[in-house]
Amino acid sequence: MKIYQNQSTDSLIADISSVTNQSIPEEINRRVAEIITTVQAKGDQALFDYSQQFDNVTLDTLQVAKATIQAAYNEVSPTVISALEKAVINITSFHEQEKRSGFVDMPKPGVIRGSKVTPLSAVGVYVPGGTAAYPSSVLMNVIPAKIAGVKRIVMVTPPQKTGIDPAVLVAADLAGVDEIYQIGGAQAIAALAYGTETIPQVDKITGPGNAYVAAAKRLVYGQVAIDMIAGPSEIGILADDSADANDIAADLLSQAEHDVLARAILVTNSTTLANNVEVALTEQLKTLPRKAIAQEAIDNRASIIIVPTVAEMFTIMNAVAPEHLEVQLPDPMQYLGDIQNAGSVFLGRYASEPLGDYLAGPNHILPTSGTARFSSALSVSDFQKHIQFTQYDQRALQEDYQDVAAIARQEGLEAHARAVEQRFN
Amino acid sequence: MKIYQNQSTDSLIADISSVTNQSIPEEINRRVAEIITTVQAKGDQALFDYSQQFDNVTLDTLQVAKATIQAAYNEVSPTVISALEKAVINITSFHEQEKRSGFVDMPKPGVIRGSKVTPLSAVGVYVPGGTAAYPSSVLMNVIPAKIAGVKRIVMVTPPQKTGIDPAVLVAADLAGVDEIYQIGGAQAIAALAYGTETIPQVDKITGPGNAYVAAAKRLVYGQVAIDMIAGPSEIGILADDSADANDIAADLLSQAEHDVLARAILVTNSTTLANNVEVALTEQLKTLPRKAIAQEAIDNRASIIIVPTVAEMFTIMNAVAPEHLEVQLPDPMQYLGDIQNAGSVFLGRYASEPLGDYLAGPNHILPTSGTARFSSALSVSDFQKHIQFTQYDQRALQEDYQDVAAIARQEGLEAHARAVEQRFN
Repeated sequence: MKIYQNQSTDSLIADISSVTNQSIPEEINRRVAEIITTVQAKGDQALFDYSQQFDNVTLDTLQVAKATIQAAYNEVSPTVISALEKAVINITSFHEQEKRSGFVDMPKPGVIRGSKVTPLSAVGVYVPGGTAAYPSSVLMNVIPAKIAGVKRIVMVTPPQKTGIDPAVLVAADLAGVDEIYQIGGAQAIAALAYGTETIPQVDKITGPGNAYVAAAKRLVYGQVAIDMIAGPSEIGILADDSADANDIAADLLSQAEHDVLARAILVTNSTTLANNVEVALTEQLKTLPRKAIAQEAIDNRASIIIVPTVAEMFTIMNAVAPEHLEVQLPDPMQYLGDIQNAGSVFLGRYASEPLGDYLAGPNHILPTSGTARFSSALSVSDFQKHIQFTQYDQRALQEDYQDVAAIARQEGLEAHARAVEQRFN
Repeated sequence: MKIYQNQSTDSLIADISSVTNQSIPEEINRRVAEIITTVQAKGDQALFDYSQQFDNVTLDTLQVAKATIQAAYNEVSPTVISALEKAVINITSFHEQEKRSGFVDMPKPGVIRGSKVTPLSAVGVYVPGGTAAYPSSVLMNVIPAKIAGVKRIVMVTPPQKTGIDPAVLVAADLAGVDEIYQIGGAQAIAALAYGTETIPQVDKITGPGNAYVAAAKRLVYGQVAIDMIAGPSEIGILADDSADANDIAADLLSQAEHDVLARAILVTNSTTLANNVEVALTEQLKTLPRKAIAQEAIDNRASIIIVPTVAEMFTIMNAVAPEHLEVQLPDPMQYLGDIQNAGSVFLGRYASEPLGDYLAGPNHILPTSGTARFSSALSVSDFQKHIQFTQYDQRALQEDYQDVAAIARQEGLEAHARAVEQRFN
């Protein structure tokens, strides 16, 4: 872990702003391009072949049967099912407030113009397999699409010898997924982008995956929309003397256990707190099941930054633009206006970041690697589009067509001018 | 021009759905990557050097002086200035209705959660030089950013031996651009993405450009946000016997004159109209200044599709997902609900498409190449982001923390569970 102290704000910002840019190796891009071409050419057969080759699973069918999904409820503990149900309620009530609506106006007689908001027709959600099969991510991807009004929500997830994780199936069912296919990797992304005999072509693909999935999403971008290419998880914590060092250490570790590249940053005006957090981290790390991962992330990617004032704490953190930001200061809500760049903000001692990962309601699919400067949490509007419309009658165009023609000719586009003049010839 | 008749809807859709995918040649990508690296390393000096090398212009300063911008008003005809002023009013009043706002709710006592909507801090707008210097595009890019509340809007445009197009300078001034720099090509995109001594780093880059500009935007995507990589212009027209063939031909040509790759498609249930439009096209083409371009686009990229019913006309057009869509049918507003995929819709005889390019108010920066399936016109929300926030107090977390821990342990993330439990230890 790096400790920064007695350093100017500018040099601090320069030091911490270097992000890990994970470019995809050319070899992976080449292989993924080949997989995409094969799926386009051979459809379902390619999917069966790749499942055999990459997942070592011989599939009879691609679609997961309704009975399998219903049976999954018996394999998940009632405590977890009830927690997921509570999460569905909270995520739904939060995201319903994000729904956009259209508008119409008549700026003068004879003119009607507006914007019609409509959901995407079909969306595909990728859910990783194995230990990264997160039911919570299923909820976070699917519920906003459902609220947007997407008619067909398709989930894909890699086939497993022992069957798909039942908690993932339960989450998909609770969130309202329409169809689930057991297919993973670049071949699943290709199937969603171009369609096969069984799998429908979708308009947008969301959800995280390994390097092959990320490469495939980049390559099909344009053919379909994608959410983002997520980087390693990040937490930034702003805290002063009033904060509990054990709380802060625990929250830093909750991100560090995700990934050896995860980034955990504490910015404080208290040397005492900084020291106590260091001690607490060492202590808490000892008993963590994912100690090896968390330790490596803390050693190589964590930092504690000590600056003199609260104002400087915010300046530094806005430059970091963290995915998750905790404000552990007295009366934290007052600082909401000081935050320019962050994905999701957690205010006060009891808004521990994992609360947002699972239950509070805001989305946990968030901008990473500093992209919170210009992008936002996944939301309902990511599954809506708007279509503009304009109606003019004769008297309205009569008043305006000479202005249209004047600009058109200024731009050297004579056919544009003639098109409006044509109405009055 | 291709004429389709007596063909099944499915096979029609298959025939017309093949879009021109313009991938960027590897040689251009390589050179652009080099330019970006050089601008990062050498800053302003690289910009002066490249302007000499590529634009053959020796610059004294990068920024266009306020006096030059004021002087431009004397070089543009008062008719054009007044038309641009009218356009500013209409574009502003339309886009003000797109502005998003945040929300806050208290789903139970002790919980405050919400979404804060905030503008991006700085935006860069690229404006091409030469004959493609369009004042209308300046308005369409800048006004939504201004309404969003972006504090710093920076315009870049290639240096010209004879000075920047005065109409572009006037449009920039009317729209409220904060700074204008005379720098173009990949070097301008690099400067905006990484910043130089003179040019500020921005959060998002919008605006069209040549292949070098497009390649540079792709390469800096992730470091900054970009709007889109626009393809050739498109118009789709739905019309029946009641439509005027000369109007339709004129509107098809208004897109065809843009680019030899522009796409113009008429879908109709009237063979008479189809024949009359063909005749009118030939006639109108004769006297067009940009005849060579328009003729090539009409010959190679235009089509007239004849189907039996109005319902099939919409099915076909939704598969095309055109950038611009004209509905030239009686009582056109009634069909707004039939339109699933289009960038901007023009209803009725007097809503000629060029009206939307310049004056009506909706944006003319629109999804092309079928991407209207999943994307939308440039809008105010492209320059806003939302930051989620969550505050819990002790009693609220007390009620929820065991659910958080249950899901966390289900996902194998013990540190997540301990972070919330830690508050009650």
